[in-house]
Amino acid sequence: MTTTRAEAIPEAGSLEHSDAIELLGLVAQLEHVAFARLAADSALAPTIEQRLELSRFASAAVERRDRVLARITEIGGDPVAAVRQYDDVLDDFDARTPPGSWWERLLKAYVGYGVADDFCRLAAEGLDAGSRAVVLEVLDDASHAELAVAELDAAGSADGVLTARLALWGRRLVGEALGVVQRLLVQRPALVRLVSVGSDAAPANPPTKLFGELTAQHTRRMSRLGLTA
Amino acid sequence: MTTTRAEAIPEAGSLEHSDAIELLGLVAQLEHVAFARLAADSALAPTIEQRLELSRFASAAVERRDRVLARITEIGGDPVAAVRQYDDVLDDFDARTPPGSWWERLLKAYVGYGVADDFCRLAAEGLDAGSRAVVLEVLDDASHAELAVAELDAAGSADGVLTARLALWGRRLVGEALGVVQRLLVQRPALVRLVSVGSDAAPANPPTKLFGELTAQHTRRMSRLGLTA
Repeated sequence: MTTTRAEAIPEAGSLEHSDAIELLGLVAQLEHVAFARLAADSALAPTIEQRLELSRFASAAVERRDRVLARITEIGGDPVAAVRQYDDVLDDFDARTPPGSWWERLLKAYVGYGVADDFCRLAAEGLDAGSRAVVLEVLDDASHAELAVAELDAAGSADGVLTARLALWGRRLVGEALGVVQRLLVQRPALVRLVSVGSDAAPANPPTKLFGELTAQHTRRMSRLGLTA
Repeated sequence: MTTTRAEAIPEAGSLEHSDAIELLGLVAQLEHVAFARLAADSALAPTIEQRLELSRFASAAVERRDRVLARITEIGGDPVAAVRQYDDVLDDFDARTPPGSWWERLLKAYVGYGVADDFCRLAAEGLDAGSRAVVLEVLDDASHAELAVAELDAAGSADGVLTARLALWGRRLVGEALGVVQRLLVQRPALVRLVSVGSDAAPANPPTKLFGELTAQHTRRMSRLGLTA
Protein backbone atom coordinates (compact mmCIF):
# COMPACT_ATOMS: atom_id res chain seq x y z
CA MET A 1 0.00 0.00 0.00
CA THR A 2 2.09 2.87 -1.19
CA THR A 3 -0.54 4.94 -2.93
CA THR A 4 -0.79 8.60 -1.94
CA ARG A 5 -4.04 8.05 -0.10
CA ALA A 6 -2.78 5.13 1.99
CA GLU A 7 0.27 7.13 3.09
CA ALA A 8 -1.93 9.60 4.94
CA ILE A 9 -3.50 6.84 7.00
CA PRO A 10 -1.39 5.53 9.86
CA GLU A 11 -2.59 1.99 10.56
CA ALA A 12 -3.73 0.20 7.45
CA GLY A 13 -4.84 0.37 3.84
CA SER A 14 -7.32 2.98 2.64
CA LEU A 15 -10.08 0.49 1.81
CA GLU A 16 -9.99 -1.04 5.25
CA HIS A 17 -10.16 2.39 6.87
CA SER A 18 -12.95 3.73 4.73
CA ASP A 19 -15.07 0.77 5.88
CA ALA A 20 -14.05 1.48 9.48
CA ILE A 21 -14.99 5.14 9.14
CA GLU A 22 -18.44 4.13 7.92
CA LEU A 23 -19.09 1.92 10.92
CA LEU A 24 -17.59 4.43 13.37
CA GLY A 25 -19.84 7.11 11.87
CA LEU A 26 -22.86 4.90 12.51
CA VAL A 27 -21.83 4.20 16.12
CA ALA A 28 -21.23 7.93 16.73
CA GLN A 29 -24.65 8.73 15.26
CA LEU A 30 -26.32 6.12 17.48
CA GLU A 31 -24.65 7.60 20.55
CA HIS A 32 -25.74 11.08 19.49
CA VAL A 33 -29.31 9.80 19.08
CA ALA A 34 -29.01 8.20 22.53
CA PHE A 35 -28.00 11.59 23.95
CA ALA A 36 -31.00 13.28 22.35
CA ARG A 37 -33.38 10.58 23.54
CA LEU A 38 -32.02 10.48 27.10
CA ALA A 39 -32.19 14.27 27.31
CA ALA A 40 -35.82 14.18 26.15
CA ASP A 41 -36.50 11.36 28.64
CA SER A 42 -34.99 13.54 31.36
CA ALA A 43 -37.42 16.35 30.48
CA LEU A 44 -40.38 13.93 30.62
CA ALA A 45 -39.40 11.78 33.61
CA PRO A 46 -41.95 11.73 36.43
CA THR A 47 -39.55 12.43 39.33
CA ILE A 48 -36.66 14.81 39.91
CA GLU A 49 -34.43 11.87 40.84
CA GLN A 50 -35.04 10.33 37.39
CA ARG A 51 -34.54 13.69 35.69
CA LEU A 52 -31.14 14.10 37.35
CA GLU A 53 -30.10 10.51 36.60
CA LEU A 54 -31.21 10.59 32.96
CA SER A 55 -29.35 13.87 32.36
CA ARG A 56 -26.20 12.10 33.58
CA PHE A 57 -26.80 9.24 31.13
CA ALA A 58 -27.31 11.80 28.34
CA SER A 59 -24.02 13.40 29.26
CA ALA A 60 -22.25 10.02 29.23
CA ALA A 61 -23.58 9.37 25.69
CA VAL A 62 -21.96 12.64 24.52
CA GLU A 63 -18.69 11.50 26.01
CA ARG A 64 -18.95 8.09 24.27
CA ARG A 65 -19.84 9.71 20.94
CA ASP A 66 -16.83 12.00 21.19
CA ARG A 67 -14.52 9.04 21.86
CA VAL A 68 -15.72 7.51 18.58
CA LEU A 69 -15.32 10.82 16.72
CA ALA A 70 -11.77 11.08 18.07
CA ARG A 71 -11.01 7.62 16.65
CA ILE A 72 -12.31 8.71 13.22
CA THR A 73 -9.90 11.65 13.32
CA GLU A 74 -7.06 9.34 14.39
CA ILE A 75 -7.44 7.13 11.32
CA GLY A 76 -7.61 10.09 8.98
CA GLY A 77 -11.37 10.48 8.55
CA ASP A 78 -13.60 13.55 8.81
CA PRO A 79 -15.72 12.95 11.94
CA VAL A 80 -18.48 15.41 11.04
CA ALA A 81 -18.89 13.97 7.54
CA ALA A 82 -18.84 10.42 8.95
CA VAL A 83 -21.64 11.10 11.42
CA ARG A 84 -23.63 13.30 9.04
CA GLN A 85 -24.20 10.49 6.53
CA TYR A 86 -26.34 8.71 9.16
CA ASP A 87 -28.34 11.79 10.14
CA ASP A 88 -31.70 10.18 9.47
CA VAL A 89 -30.81 6.55 10.17
CA LEU A 90 -33.50 6.14 12.87
CA ASP A 91 -36.07 8.65 11.58
CA ASP A 92 -38.21 5.95 9.99
CA PHE A 93 -37.92 3.72 13.03
CA ASP A 94 -38.92 6.59 15.33
CA ALA A 95 -41.84 7.63 13.12
CA ARG A 96 -43.19 4.06 13.04
CA THR A 97 -42.83 3.38 16.78
CA PRO A 98 -44.14 6.34 18.77
CA PRO A 99 -44.23 5.15 22.40
CA GLY A 100 -47.61 5.52 24.09
CA SER A 101 -46.38 5.64 27.68
CA TRP A 102 -43.32 6.06 29.85
CA TRP A 103 -42.94 2.24 29.96
CA GLU A 104 -43.16 1.92 26.20
CA ARG A 105 -40.52 4.64 25.93
CA LEU A 106 -38.19 2.75 28.28
CA LEU A 107 -38.71 -0.54 26.45
CA LYS A 108 -38.12 1.15 23.12
CA ALA A 109 -34.73 2.41 24.30
CA TYR A 110 -33.77 -0.96 25.70
CA VAL A 111 -35.03 -3.15 22.85
CA GLY A 112 -34.91 -0.92 19.77
CA TYR A 113 -31.52 0.63 20.29
CA GLY A 114 -30.31 -2.66 21.77
CA VAL A 115 -30.65 -4.23 18.32
CA ALA A 116 -28.69 -1.35 16.76
CA ASP A 117 -25.93 -1.77 19.36
CA ASP A 118 -25.77 -5.52 18.75
CA PHE A 119 -25.48 -4.97 15.02
CA CYS A 120 -22.56 -2.56 15.52
CA ARG A 121 -20.92 -5.00 17.93
CA LEU A 122 -21.06 -7.78 15.32
CA ALA A 123 -19.84 -5.51 12.53
CA ALA A 124 -16.98 -4.36 14.78
CA GLU A 125 -15.43 -7.83 14.41
CA GLY A 126 -14.39 -6.74 10.94
CA LEU A 127 -12.53 -3.64 12.17
CA ASP A 128 -8.84 -3.01 12.82
CA ALA A 129 -7.91 -3.71 16.46
CA GLY A 130 -7.81 -0.05 17.56
CA SER A 131 -11.21 0.86 16.15
CA ARG A 132 -12.76 -2.38 17.39
CA ALA A 133 -11.56 -1.66 20.92
CA VAL A 134 -13.16 1.79 20.85
CA VAL A 135 -16.49 0.48 19.53
CA LEU A 136 -16.71 -2.42 21.98
CA GLU A 137 -15.75 -0.20 24.92
CA VAL A 138 -18.34 2.42 23.98
CA LEU A 139 -21.14 -0.10 23.41
CA ASP A 140 -20.32 -1.90 26.63
CA ASP A 141 -20.69 1.32 28.58
CA ALA A 142 -24.43 1.67 27.98
CA SER A 143 -25.23 1.46 31.67
CA HIS A 144 -28.53 3.28 31.17
CA ALA A 145 -29.94 -0.04 29.97
CA GLU A 146 -29.73 -1.12 33.61
CA LEU A 147 -32.13 1.66 34.57
CA ALA A 148 -34.65 0.51 31.98
CA VAL A 149 -34.34 -3.07 33.21
CA ALA A 150 -34.73 -2.10 36.86
CA GLU A 151 -37.76 0.11 36.26
CA LEU A 152 -39.51 -2.18 33.80
CA ASP A 153 -38.89 -5.17 36.01
CA ALA A 154 -40.33 -3.41 39.06
CA ALA A 155 -43.38 -2.17 37.16
CA GLY A 156 -44.00 -5.29 35.11
CA SER A 157 -43.88 -7.86 37.87
CA ALA A 158 -46.74 -6.08 39.63
CA ASP A 159 -49.03 -5.74 36.62
CA GLY A 160 -50.08 -8.57 34.30
CA VAL A 161 -51.84 -6.33 31.79
CA LEU A 162 -48.76 -4.12 31.46
CA THR A 163 -46.56 -7.20 30.99
CA ALA A 164 -48.73 -8.53 28.16
CA ARG A 165 -48.89 -5.14 26.47
CA LEU A 166 -45.12 -4.64 26.72
CA ALA A 167 -44.41 -8.12 25.30
CA LEU A 168 -46.47 -7.14 22.25
CA TRP A 169 -44.72 -3.76 22.01
CA GLY A 170 -41.35 -5.53 22.19
CA ARG A 171 -42.26 -7.73 19.22
CA ARG A 172 -43.23 -4.69 17.18
CA LEU A 173 -40.02 -2.89 18.12
CA VAL A 174 -37.74 -5.75 17.17
CA GLY A 175 -39.46 -6.16 13.81
CA GLU A 176 -38.97 -2.50 12.98
CA ALA A 177 -35.39 -2.53 14.29
CA LEU A 178 -34.46 -5.51 12.12
CA GLY A 179 -35.95 -3.57 9.20
CA VAL A 180 -33.51 -0.74 9.92
CA VAL A 181 -30.58 -3.19 9.84
CA GLN A 182 -31.85 -4.69 6.57
CA ARG A 183 -32.02 -1.25 4.91
CA LEU A 184 -28.53 -0.41 6.19
CA LEU A 185 -27.12 -3.58 4.62
CA VAL A 186 -28.75 -2.76 1.29
CA GLN A 187 -27.46 0.82 1.29
CA ARG A 188 -23.98 0.28 2.76
CA PRO A 189 -21.75 -2.35 1.20
CA ALA A 190 -19.03 -1.38 3.69
CA LEU A 191 -21.19 -2.65 6.56
CA VAL A 192 -21.88 -5.90 4.70
CA ARG A 193 -18.13 -6.43 4.32
CA LEU A 194 -17.49 -5.80 8.03
CA VAL A 195 -20.32 -8.09 9.12
CA SER A 196 -19.06 -10.85 6.81
CA VAL A 197 -15.76 -10.93 8.69
CA GLY A 198 -17.60 -11.04 12.01
CA SER A 199 -19.97 -13.80 11.05
CA ASP A 200 -17.41 -15.93 9.18
CA ALA A 201 -19.89 -16.16 6.33
CA ALA A 202 -19.48 -15.50 2.65
CA PRO A 203 -20.02 -11.77 1.91
CA ALA A 204 -22.96 -12.70 -0.27
CA ASN A 205 -24.83 -14.28 2.58
CA PRO A 206 -24.11 -12.71 5.95
CA PRO A 207 -27.73 -11.71 6.74
CA THR A 208 -28.95 -15.17 7.66
CA LYS A 209 -26.43 -15.66 10.43
CA LEU A 210 -26.60 -11.99 11.40
CA PHE A 211 -30.36 -11.89 11.81
CA GLY A 212 -30.28 -15.15 13.75
CA GLU A 213 -27.76 -13.62 16.14
CA LEU A 214 -29.71 -10.35 16.50
CA THR A 215 -32.93 -12.23 17.20
CA ALA A 216 -31.24 -14.42 19.80
CA GLN A 217 -29.88 -11.33 21.59
CA HIS A 218 -33.33 -9.79 21.52
CA THR A 219 -34.88 -12.90 23.08
CA ARG A 220 -32.27 -12.82 25.84
CA ARG A 221 -32.99 -9.14 26.44
CA MET A 222 -36.74 -9.69 26.73
CA SER A 223 -36.25 -12.62 29.12
CA ARG A 224 -34.29 -10.38 31.47
CA LEU A 225 -37.54 -8.44 31.84
CA GLY A 226 -39.65 -11.55 32.20
CA LEU A 227 -41.24 -10.79 28.83
CA THR A 228 -41.88 -13.24 26.00
CA ALA A 229 -40.01 -12.30 22.83
CA MET B 1 -23.30 27.11 68.06
CA THR B 2 -23.59 23.91 70.04
CA THR B 3 -27.16 22.94 69.23
CA THR B 4 -27.70 19.43 67.92
CA ARG B 5 -28.48 20.69 64.44
CA ALA B 6 -25.38 22.85 64.16
CA GLU B 7 -23.18 19.94 65.23
CA ALA B 8 -24.14 18.01 62.12
CA ILE B 9 -22.92 20.81 59.89
CA PRO B 10 -19.17 21.06 59.45
CA GLU B 11 -18.46 24.67 58.54
CA ALA B 12 -20.84 27.12 60.19
CA GLY B 13 -24.13 27.67 61.99
CA SER B 14 -27.33 26.09 60.78
CA LEU B 15 -28.99 29.36 59.79
CA GLU B 16 -26.09 30.36 57.58
CA HIS B 17 -26.10 26.97 55.91
CA SER B 18 -29.82 26.79 55.34
CA ASP B 19 -29.55 30.07 53.41
CA ALA B 20 -26.60 28.68 51.46
CA ILE B 21 -28.53 25.51 50.61
CA GLU B 22 -31.38 27.63 49.24
CA LEU B 23 -29.10 29.53 46.90
CA LEU B 24 -27.15 26.42 45.89
CA GLY B 25 -30.47 24.72 45.11
CA LEU B 26 -31.38 27.62 42.82
CA VAL B 27 -28.02 27.54 41.04
CA ALA B 28 -28.29 23.76 40.56
CA GLN B 29 -31.81 24.15 39.17
CA LEU B 30 -30.64 26.85 36.74
CA GLU B 31 -27.84 24.59 35.50
CA HIS B 32 -30.32 21.74 35.10
CA VAL B 33 -32.61 24.04 33.10
CA ALA B 34 -29.58 25.06 31.02
CA PHE B 35 -28.92 21.38 30.30
CA ALA B 36 -32.52 20.83 29.18
CA ARG B 37 -32.48 23.95 27.01
CA LEU B 38 -29.12 23.22 25.40
CA ALA B 39 -30.18 19.63 24.70
CA ALA B 40 -33.36 20.92 23.03
CA ASP B 41 -31.28 23.49 21.12
CA SER B 42 -29.05 20.66 19.94
CA ALA B 43 -32.07 18.81 18.56
CA LEU B 44 -33.25 21.95 16.73
CA ALA B 45 -29.94 23.34 15.51
CA PRO B 46 -29.67 23.80 11.74
CA THR B 47 -26.28 22.10 11.22
CA ILE B 48 -24.63 18.93 12.51
CA GLU B 49 -21.66 20.98 13.75
CA GLN B 50 -24.01 23.01 15.99
CA ARG B 51 -25.82 19.87 17.13
CA LEU B 52 -22.54 18.31 18.23
CA GLU B 53 -21.32 21.50 19.91
CA LEU B 54 -24.58 22.17 21.76
CA SER B 55 -24.71 18.61 23.08
CA ARG B 56 -21.25 19.21 24.57
CA PHE B 57 -22.51 22.39 26.27
CA ALA B 58 -25.51 20.45 27.61
CA SER B 59 -23.14 17.86 29.00
CA ALA B 60 -21.01 20.57 30.65
CA ALA B 61 -24.13 21.99 32.36
CA VAL B 62 -24.80 18.56 33.91
CA GLU B 63 -21.27 18.52 35.24
CA ARG B 64 -21.65 22.03 36.71
CA ARG B 65 -25.00 21.15 38.28
CA ASP B 66 -23.48 18.07 39.90
CA ARG B 67 -20.62 20.12 41.37
CA VAL B 68 -23.23 22.33 43.07
CA LEU B 69 -25.20 19.31 44.29
CA ALA B 70 -22.00 17.86 45.75
CA ARG B 71 -21.47 21.09 47.70
CA ILE B 72 -25.00 20.85 49.12
CA THR B 73 -24.20 17.34 50.36
CA GLU B 74 -20.90 18.58 51.82
CA ILE B 75 -22.62 21.16 54.01
CA GLY B 76 -25.21 18.70 55.24
CA GLY B 77 -28.10 19.48 52.89
CA ASP B 78 -30.30 17.18 50.81
CA PRO B 79 -29.38 17.97 47.18
CA VAL B 80 -32.56 16.55 45.63
CA ALA B 81 -34.82 18.48 48.02
CA ALA B 82 -32.78 21.65 47.47
CA VAL B 83 -33.13 21.51 43.70
CA ARG B 84 -36.74 20.29 43.76
CA GLN B 85 -38.02 23.45 45.49
CA TYR B 86 -37.11 25.44 42.35
CA ASP B 87 -38.68 22.97 39.92
CA ASP B 88 -40.93 25.57 38.30
CA VAL B 89 -38.77 28.67 38.82
CA LEU B 90 -38.59 29.50 35.09
CA ASP B 91 -41.94 28.04 33.96
CA ASP B 92 -43.66 31.43 33.95
CA PHE B 93 -40.71 33.08 32.23
CA ASP B 94 -40.65 30.37 29.55
CA ALA B 95 -44.41 30.51 29.00
CA ARG B 96 -44.30 34.29 28.57
CA THR B 97 -41.31 34.37 26.22
CA PRO B 98 -41.68 31.70 23.53
CA PRO B 99 -38.90 32.40 21.00
CA GLY B 100 -40.10 32.83 17.42
CA SER B 101 -36.85 31.91 15.69
CA TRP B 102 -33.44 30.36 16.19
CA TRP B 103 -31.99 33.86 16.82
CA GLU B 104 -34.63 34.68 19.41
CA ARG B 105 -33.85 31.36 21.09
CA LEU B 106 -30.13 32.20 21.24
CA LEU B 107 -30.78 35.69 22.58
CA LYS B 108 -33.17 34.32 25.17
CA ALA B 109 -30.48 32.01 26.50
CA TYR B 110 -27.88 34.74 26.56
CA VAL B 111 -30.03 37.54 27.99
CA GLY B 112 -32.73 35.79 30.01
CA TYR B 113 -30.60 33.25 31.80
CA GLY B 114 -27.79 35.84 31.97
CA VAL B 115 -29.93 37.85 34.39
CA ALA B 116 -30.53 34.74 36.52
CA ASP B 117 -26.79 34.00 36.60
CA ASP B 118 -25.99 37.59 37.59
CA PHE B 119 -28.52 37.43 40.40
CA CYS B 120 -26.94 34.24 41.75
CA ARG B 121 -23.47 35.77 41.44
CA LEU B 122 -24.55 38.78 43.54
CA ALA B 123 -26.32 36.62 46.13
CA ALA B 124 -23.21 34.41 46.33
CA GLU B 125 -21.42 37.30 48.07
CA GLY B 126 -23.44 36.39 51.15
CA LEU B 127 -22.25 32.76 51.18
CA ASP B 128 -19.54 31.01 53.19
CA ALA B 129 -16.22 30.96 51.33
CA GLY B 130 -16.45 27.33 50.18
CA SER B 131 -19.96 27.61 48.74
CA ARG B 132 -19.18 30.98 47.17
CA ALA B 133 -16.16 29.53 45.38
CA VAL B 134 -18.29 26.72 43.90
CA VAL B 135 -21.04 29.10 42.72
CA LEU B 136 -18.64 31.62 41.15
CA GLU B 137 -16.63 28.88 39.46
CA VAL B 138 -19.77 27.28 38.02
CA LEU B 139 -21.28 30.55 36.80
CA ASP B 140 -18.00 31.62 35.27
CA ASP B 141 -17.85 28.45 33.24
CA ALA B 142 -20.84 29.29 31.03
CA SER B 143 -18.79 29.26 27.85
CA HIS B 144 -21.86 28.55 25.72
CA ALA B 145 -22.66 32.27 26.01
CA GLU B 146 -19.70 32.79 23.69
CA LEU B 147 -21.44 30.71 21.01
CA ALA B 148 -24.57 32.86 21.29
CA VAL B 149 -22.47 36.02 21.03
CA ALA B 150 -20.50 34.79 18.04
CA GLU B 151 -23.59 33.63 16.13
CA LEU B 152 -25.78 36.59 16.95
CA ASP B 153 -22.98 38.97 16.14
CA ALA B 154 -22.35 37.37 12.78
CA ALA B 155 -26.05 37.29 11.87
CA GLY B 156 -26.96 40.70 13.27
CA SER B 157 -24.23 42.77 11.67
CA ALA B 158 -25.44 41.70 8.25
CA ASP B 159 -29.13 42.39 8.80
CA GLY B 160 -30.62 45.67 10.06
CA VAL B 161 -34.16 44.36 10.39
CA LEU B 162 -32.99 41.42 12.49
CA THR B 163 -30.95 43.75 14.70
CA ALA B 164 -33.94 45.99 15.40
CA ARG B 165 -36.19 43.03 16.10
CA LEU B 166 -33.67 41.42 18.45
CA ALA B 167 -33.15 44.68 20.37
CA LEU B 168 -36.90 44.75 21.04
CA TRP B 169 -36.89 41.06 22.00
CA GLY B 170 -34.00 41.74 24.41
CA ARG B 171 -36.01 44.45 26.18
CA ARG B 172 -38.93 42.10 26.60
CA LEU B 173 -36.68 39.34 27.92
CA VAL B 174 -34.97 41.49 30.51
CA GLY B 175 -38.30 42.81 31.79
CA GLU B 176 -39.62 39.29 32.29
CA ALA B 177 -36.33 38.11 33.81
CA LEU B 178 -36.32 40.93 36.37
CA GLY B 179 -39.89 39.91 37.20
CA VAL B 180 -38.61 36.40 38.03
CA VAL B 181 -36.00 37.89 40.38
CA GLN B 182 -38.65 40.07 42.03
CA ARG B 183 -40.90 37.06 42.69
CA LEU B 184 -37.94 35.09 44.07
CA LEU B 185 -37.17 37.87 46.54
CA VAL B 186 -40.78 38.01 47.72
CA GLN B 187 -40.96 34.22 48.17
CA ARG B 188 -37.47 33.54 49.54
CA PRO B 189 -36.28 35.58 52.54
CA ALA B 190 -33.06 33.56 52.52
CA LEU B 191 -32.15 35.02 49.12
CA VAL B 192 -32.93 38.55 50.36
CA ARG B 193 -30.54 38.00 53.28
CA LEU B 194 -27.76 36.76 50.98
CA VAL B 195 -28.23 39.61 48.51
CA SER B 196 -28.17 42.16 51.35
CA VAL B 197 -24.67 41.03 52.30
CA GLY B 198 -23.60 41.27 48.69
CA SER B 199 -25.02 44.68 48.03
CA ASP B 200 -23.95 46.23 51.36
CA ALA B 201 -27.51 47.53 51.73
CA ALA B 202 -29.97 47.25 54.59
CA PRO B 203 -31.93 43.98 54.30
CA ALA B 204 -35.14 45.99 53.93
CA ASN B 205 -33.93 47.68 50.80
CA PRO B 206 -31.59 45.55 48.72
CA PRO B 207 -33.73 45.54 45.54
CA THR B 208 -32.90 49.09 44.45
CA LYS B 209 -29.17 48.47 44.27
CA LEU B 210 -29.68 44.90 43.04
CA PHE B 211 -31.94 45.87 40.14
CA GLY B 212 -29.59 48.69 39.20
CA GLU B 213 -26.74 46.20 39.05
CA LEU B 214 -28.73 43.62 37.05
CA THR B 215 -29.85 46.26 34.56
CA ALA B 216 -26.29 47.54 34.11
CA GLN B 217 -25.07 43.99 33.40
CA HIS B 218 -27.86 43.53 30.89
CA THR B 219 -26.92 46.73 29.08
CA ARG B 220 -23.31 45.57 28.90
CA ARG B 221 -24.44 42.20 27.53
CA MET B 222 -26.58 43.79 24.81
CA SER B 223 -23.75 46.14 23.78
CA ARG B 224 -21.50 43.15 23.17
CA LEU B 225 -23.98 42.20 20.45
CA GLY B 226 -24.22 45.75 19.12
CA LEU B 227 -27.84 45.88 20.33
CA THR B 228 -29.49 48.75 22.21
CA ALA B 229 -30.71 47.68 25.65
